[in-house]
Order: sequence, then C-alpha cells, then structure tokens
Amino acid sequence: MTTIDHLDTLPDGRSVEDARVEAARAYDLDRRHVFHSWSAQAEISPMGITASAGSYVWDGDGRRLLDFSSMLVNTNIGHQHPRVIAAIQRQAAKLCTVAPQYANDVRSEAARLIAERTPGDLDKIFFTNGGADANEHAVRMARLHTGRRKVLTRYRSYHGGTDTAINLTGDPRRWPNDHGDSGVVHFFGPFLYRSRFHAETEEQECARALDHLDEVIRMEGPSTIAAIVLETIPGTAGIMIPPPGYLRGVRELCDRYGIVYIADEVMAGFGRSGTWFSVDLVGVTPDLLTFAKGVNSGYVPLGGVAISAAIAATFDHRPYPGGLTYSGHPLATAAAVATITAMADEDVVGNASRIGAEVIGPGLAELADRHPSVGEVRGCGVFWALELVRDRTTREPLAPYGASSAAMNDVVAACRSGGLLPFANVNRIHVVPPCTVTAEEVREGLTVLDAALTVGDAHLPG
Amino acid sequence: MTTIDHLDTLPDGRSVEDARVEAARAYDLDRRHVFHSWSAQAEISPMGITASAGSYVWDGDGRRLLDFSSMLVNTNIGHQHPRVIAAIQRQAAKLCTVAPQYANDVRSEAARLIAERTPGDLDKIFFTNGGADANEHAVRMARLHTGRRKVLTRYRSYHGGTDTAINLTGDPRRWPNDHGDSGVVHFFGPFLYRSRFHAETEEQECARALDHLDEVIRMEGPSTIAAIVLETIPGTAGIMIPPPGYLRGVRELCDRYGIVYIADEVMAGFGRSGTWFSVDLVGVTPDLLTFAKGVNSGYVPLGGVAISAAIAATFDHRPYPGGLTYSGHPLATAAAVATITAMADEDVVGNASRIGAEVIGPGLAELADRHPSVGEVRGCGVFWALELVRDRTTREPLAPYGASSAAMNDVVAACRSGGLLPFANVNRIHVVPPCTVTAEEVREGLTVLDAALTVGDAHLPG
Ligand SMILES: Cc1ncc(COP(=O)(O)O)c(C=O)c1O
Ligand SMILES: Cc1ncc(COP(=O)(O)O)c(C=O)c1O
Repeated sequence: MTTIDHLDTLPDGRSVEDARVEAARAYDLDRRHVFHSWSAQAEISPMGITASAGSYVWDGDGRRLLDFSSMLVNTNIGHQHPRVIAAIQRQAAKLCTVAPQYANDVRSEAARLIAERTPGDLDKIFFTNGGADANEHAVRMARLHTGRRKVLTRYRSYHGGTDTAINLTGDPRRWPNDHGDSGVVHFFGPFLYRSRFHAETEEQECARALDHLDEVIRMEGPSTIAAIVLETIPGTAGIMIPPPGYLRGVRELCDRYGIVYIADEVMAGFGRSGTWFSVDLVGVTPDLLTFAKGVNSGYVPLGGVAISAAIAATFDHRPYPGGLTYSGHPLATAAAVATITAMADEDVVGNASRIGAEVIGPGLAELADRHPSVGEVRGCGVFWALELVRDRTTREPLAPYGASSAAMNDVVAACRSGGLLPFANVNRIHVVPPCTVTAEEVREGLTVLDAALTVGDAHLPG
Repeated sequence: MTTIDHLDTLPDGRSVEDARVEAARAYDLDRRHVFHSWSAQAEISPMGITASAGSYVWDGDGRRLLDFSSMLVNTNIGHQHPRVIAAIQRQAAKLCTVAPQYANDVRSEAARLIAERTPGDLDKIFFTNGGADANEHAVRMARLHTGRRKVLTRYRSYHGGTDTAINLTGDPRRWPNDHGDSGVVHFFGPFLYRSRFHAETEEQECARALDHLDEVIRMEGPSTIAAIVLETIPGTAGIMIPPPGYLRGVRELCDRYGIVYIADEVMAGFGRSGTWFSVDLVGVTPDLLTFAKGVNSGYVPLGGVAISAAIAATFDHRPYPGGLTYSGHPLATAAAVATITAMADEDVVGNASRIGAEVIGPGLAELADRHPSVGEVRGCGVFWALELVRDRTTREPLAPYGASSAAMNDVVAACRSGGLLPFANVNRIHVVPPCTVTAEEVREGLTVLDAALTVGDAHLPG
C-alpha cells in the first residue's frame, strides 16, 4: 500500500488541503444542483474527483486511486496526456467553434485520420457529440438506405441513453423507456458461459447463435429489417468476446438478406481491445461503424459514424435528414487528431495488446485459480471482465441480473479502500485501465483486486 | 466597404496566404471524408472558416465576414472571447474529463450559476452534450413524472436531430424521420403574420391560439398528454415572438390538465433575446427548461435540462433511467462558468437588449420601409427575422415552405459578397449576431443587408 496512498501534492501542484476544500464545496453544490445520470438522486453521495494523471485519479480527500475503469472506459490514452492537452489549448486559442456547414482544417484532418483506420470503404465520417447520437444517426442512415424500419440488436448490450439508443440497448435500463414501439427486436448473442443455446464449446455456441439469428431474421421478415446493431465486443454488458466466426457469420447474414450491419465500437474501438477497431480482430467490415470515447479519450465530447461508400452515396443527391450544432466541433476534433497521432507515435494500441496478453490475462487467470468467487475471466487488450458467482458449478451470479448485492458492494468497497477504482456492473468487475497502463501499474491493481476478491469469497455459501 | 475587406493577417497572426493553404487542404479532405449535417453530400461546396474574433469570421480566402449568424445562433458571447479561452486552457491543464457519477468542482459551479438564473424552483441541472439530447431527456422526465406518453409541440419549430427531438420538430426536416409512431402531436402556435386563426390583432391571435390549444388538448385527451414542448421564441422557424399572454395561457392550460410545460431555450436562452432566458420576458416559469448553445457559446459541446423541484423529486428514490458518458463534462462546464461570469461582468445581456431596441430594431424597420421584398420585421435583443415576400399584400413568401428559391439564393449571395454572413432559412433572413455586437458593427451589417435586399426587390414581379 505504499504506492497507492496519500501524497502531499496533486499532479497540478495544488496541495491536498486545497483539493479537499475544493471537493467539499463541489460536493455541497453537487447535492444541491446537479442531477446525475442513471441515479436515484437522494440515494447517492458522489465521490469527488479533483485531479488525474496517466492511470491515476485523485479523490476528494486528495487520495490517489489507480483507475481501472478509465472513467466510463473512455480515457484510452490515459488521463491528462500532455500532447492532447496542448492540442486543445492551441485549438482553443485559434478557433473554438465552427458550424457544421463550413469546412474546417481540424475536422477534415480528424476525418482523414479516422477514415484511414476504419476498415474497408468506411471513408466518410459524420461527427456527433457522443456514442448515443452516433447510434441514432447510424440507425437513421440504415433505415433510409434500405427503406426498412426494424432494427435487430442483442440482449446484453448497451448503445446509449437517448430514446432510440436506449431502445437498441439490451439491458434493464431500457425497460422504463420501452413502450414497445421502437421498432427494435432483441435476439440472443453468443455467450458460452451462460449459453442460451445449450452449447458446450465455442464452435457450438457460434453455430447455434448464428442459426438462432438466421431464424429470428426469417421469422421477423428479412424485408422488414433495416439493420443489425452489434457491439463488436459487448462492453458494459460483460465483455463477451464473440466466438471465432460469429461476426463473419453476421456479415454473411446481412449480405444474404440486404440488412445493414452496424458495428458499435463506442467502447470496443480505438485501442481498447489491442487493435484500432475490434472488427480488425476478425477481419470483418461492417457497413456503418459508430465510435466515441477512445476517439479522443473523452477529453472533449465527440462521437461519430464511419459510413461505407454505398450508404454515403444514398445521400449524394438526397439530403441526409439529420444534424446537430456541434457536428465536427473544432475543439473536439483537434483533441481527436492529437489523440490518434499520439496513440500511433507511442504505440499505445500495441501496448494495450501486449499488456493484455502478457500481464492482465495471466494475472487474472491466476486470481481466478485462487478465488472461488471468480466464475470466469474473459477479455483481451485492456478490456477484461471477471464474472463473480456464488457457486462455480451453478454459476449463480454474485448479484442478480440488473441489480446489485451486498457481496458486490463489499468487493467494490474493498477495491476503493485499497486504492483501486474498478468498473463494476451487476455481478462483474471489469478491468479496463487506460491503454497506456504499465505492467507495474497492472500488478499494483491486481494486488488490490486479490484482497477484494477475498472479501467476495467470504460471501460465498458454506 | 473599407472595413469589411481583405486584411493581411488573421487575428491569430497567421498570414492570409497560410490560411488559404490550410483552407484548400481542409476543403479537399472535407469533400473526401466529411459527411455533413442536413445535406445532399454531392451538392455542397462548404465555405471554409479559418479564424474568428468577436463578431467576425475569416473564410478560406482569408476574407473577413461580419457574422450575423453567430454560426448556428450559438456564439452569444462573440467569437474567441479571451476569458472563455483562458478558462478552457486552464481546465484542460487541470482535468479534462470526469465520469458523470463523480462530483467535480466546475460541474457543480456551472450548475449553481445556471440554477441561479433559471426561473422559479428550476434548481437541479442535468447536463447533456447539446440541445437535441436535452430535449430527449426533458421529454423522458415528463413522461415518467406524469406516467403519460403523448407530447404536444407546435408546427414551425425546431427541437434537434436525434429521433425523439426531430419528431418534436415542426419543420419539413421531420418528415423523412416521421413514422407516425413518435407519440408527438403538432398544433398551431401564434403567428399573426400568417395567422391560422383568421386573426387581425395580437389579442385575437393570442386568444384564438390558446383556444385552439385547449381544444387540441381536450380532443387528444388530457390524461394522455405528458408534456407541451415550446420554444419560448421559435428560432429557426422564424423568430415569432409570442403575443402577450400566450405563454402565461400555456402555463395555465398545463396546470389545469396536469401537463408538464417544457420550455426549449436552446436558441432563445442565455442572452439572445436580451434576457438570460426568454421566459423572463413574460415572467412565466416552465417545469423543465432546456438549454445549450449560449450556455457556453458552443466553445465546447454542452446542453442541459433545468428541472423543477417537483419533477426532480420524482427521481429522488427511483433511478432516473437516462444518462451519457459526458454528462457534466469538466471542459464544457468550465467554459460555461467562464461564459456566464463574463456575460454578467460585461453586461452582455444588457448589450443585447439595448442593441436590439436602439439599433437593430429601428435599422431593420427603416430597411423594411424602403424594400418591398420585406414583408415583416420582428424580434428583440439580437434575435431578429426579416420575412421576405414576393408580394406584400398576399404575403407570398420569397421561397416556398421548406425549400429555397433563386431569389433567396441571390439575397444570401449578395450578403456574402458584401462581407456579411447571414442566417437564412426558407424565405427569411435572420439577424442574429453575437450578443456582444457593437452599434457600429450592426450599422456595417445593415448597409450590406440594404444592398442585398435591393437584389431581393429585383426578383419581385412587376
Ligand atoms: C457500446 C456503447 N455504445 C454507446 C454508448 C453511448 O455513448 P455515450 O454515453 O457517449 O452517449 C456507450 C457508452 O457507454 C457504449 O459503451
Ligand atoms: C430551439 C432549438 N432546440 C434544439 C436544438 C438542437 O440543438 P443541437 O443542435 O445542439 O442538438 C436547436 C438547434 O438549433 C434549437 O434551435
């Protein structure tokens, strides 16, 4: 616990005492005036964050925490990367804002750098403010391109908070927003650990999941389906790496039935899985690819849709009926240019891949061996999940679907008191540090996690 | 025309030649890689913008243009305000990004400054990335608060580009996105110049528009209606100042029928009309108020919803089922804190009010006197519309609803070649400069507009 502990000053040189005063005032005003996402407002007491650097954040007590969450899995390049900060500062001095109907150098350059990395002919970029509106617009493009309305997505997925995006989502957060009229139909995706297809091997799971999707398409009517939207690797829902062949099979089904394949890479893209885009892991090219988060590590709000030549051509002479005031915002796209350039120069994506294969993967496997509360470890790059269970045989989760539990709360509290900020969802702890994380930082975090899992083990029956 | 002309250097010190090279490359990459809002992609050739300062922008030829559009009516504090730039640069150095579940000083402070200015008990702020998602979330809050689903909005309105927001919109851009299943019903709002109520005075228009709304509510079924969403002053649709008593009447209808009143102040708020919020002009308090644009002049993407105590309480112990990665983003809220503080210190809102009453209003009235193509002038603050017509008696618009025309294109081209960037929509030219615009700049712009209207006059029959 020597490295994860109180320090005298914060990375920006302020004293811990100053940070405490700031955080106390922030907390007080927060409780009076800030309405928080996804929360029962009277039942939360938000932890303060006053500073950050690299893989660390500082809380309201000036205490340093190792960020194994990357906030909401967005700070892929780490916190406060100097080149991205400098680019934001330079762009702020030059030109903060420009309306979307004009041409602007940084927007153009960001589009070039993204198009250079997206697969196939996904070479036109429509910029949005975040992931939800990227998915909203991708679905609109698919609907207008096909003239069809229905959209297929999987259970156990997250696609954003606006109305269409939350209805795409396969997660209990959809329920209060689902009036049955969104035109979205949910199917089961591959997830061998909790197979809905009674499969025992990845091959079976893959074949049966594709067969299931084919049947859903044929029963729903191929001529009614505009798009299939899939997180390439479902993130918040559990980091379920699709079995080999699954996404290629989805691509083939889309081709067979004239359905647009939309890959949601909002969380899985820009280095998270150890590649620029997770579809690269399997060499599949979707028709539309949505991104946000990692594109500029969330330093400035930005998202977007990469569009295939065929879909872009639909709107060559027919106006695309969508837009937003901040599409291609200079400050946001300047941050993207700096982020992508720095990630390339510093081989950040390669680091994520190596750290995953050499340190996180083996380290988590070792923890799983020793802790009976760990049911499964899965992931790649800096994108890992620990599935916590009450019983390894029945696989009963340590918290029921869509809820929490005392056991999970204790595990999370043990992480925090050990100096680790995890990403927790239902019965899972996700290990999703920045792509820049070092082997030593990972080992430091795994030590804390080890102790926290012992707390989890203690909740197991008998 | 001496002041609106080529200069040797841009405000940031670059030479015009450098700006030209930059703009040429930006244009080329734009045409290859940028997909633009609301456009037929092959039919546009976007003007470049390379720099901006105060009320001016510089185009791809290094030519200075007086910005009578405030981009998309968002740069209320003017372009490149030094205090806002400095705040962004400082915050970038300190802390760029924080997830919404934590408490953070600038987010708290921005919420406090906004809540201090919103009317009544609208004291809790939910931050979004822009105007569209602000409206999406406001509608969701109203639906969950009332347990009802239907939403009433007016024809001739704009509420944003995501699916629910574009369906709230009363504008042809909704049509390709309207599948008849959005739960939105449109009614007619007051607009004396093109009265749907056969009214001849503001009093008649007001009474009949309220009577019409009451009848629509009673025919649709009050128990089915969650919310009425109204731009306090419809912006893009034509800057129709509501007649005295109208919004008070809407408030009364909402109270009578238990309907949530959502005021969309995305364009009308933060100084545009010469007050902090346009509802202040009439002393009406909505239940929810949405904002974006002027809150930080669009220097960093930001929007939000100000929430009444009663609606906030609905989510005290029941989780609010909505959120987004960048809710309350530090860079965006730091820009809001600096913008609001500078606007207050520099009496920017007072300037907007005075310039409107003393310079823009009288100046436009004088132009209307001399130009037969001007059918009506209306507005307040720095929020004015010229309604251009082919015939003052029939009021036939100079371009048909939802379309453009050669005459309008010529008027806009004349503005641009005269060194003025207008905001044009259908048959209207909007005069919507920054709230910081000076009397001299307004006079400079009106001179260009005078010449452009002569071009418009020449299109009139006989
Ligand atoms: C896969 C995925 N899609 C979409 C989104 C929505 O992005 P945003 O929160 O920026 O709207 C998220 C956010 O977590 C995500 O993980
Ligand atoms: C009144 C109004 N509401 C909502 C919006 C949508 O805002 P945004 O483009 O930031 O999504 C606009 C944008 O012009 C607007 O004028």
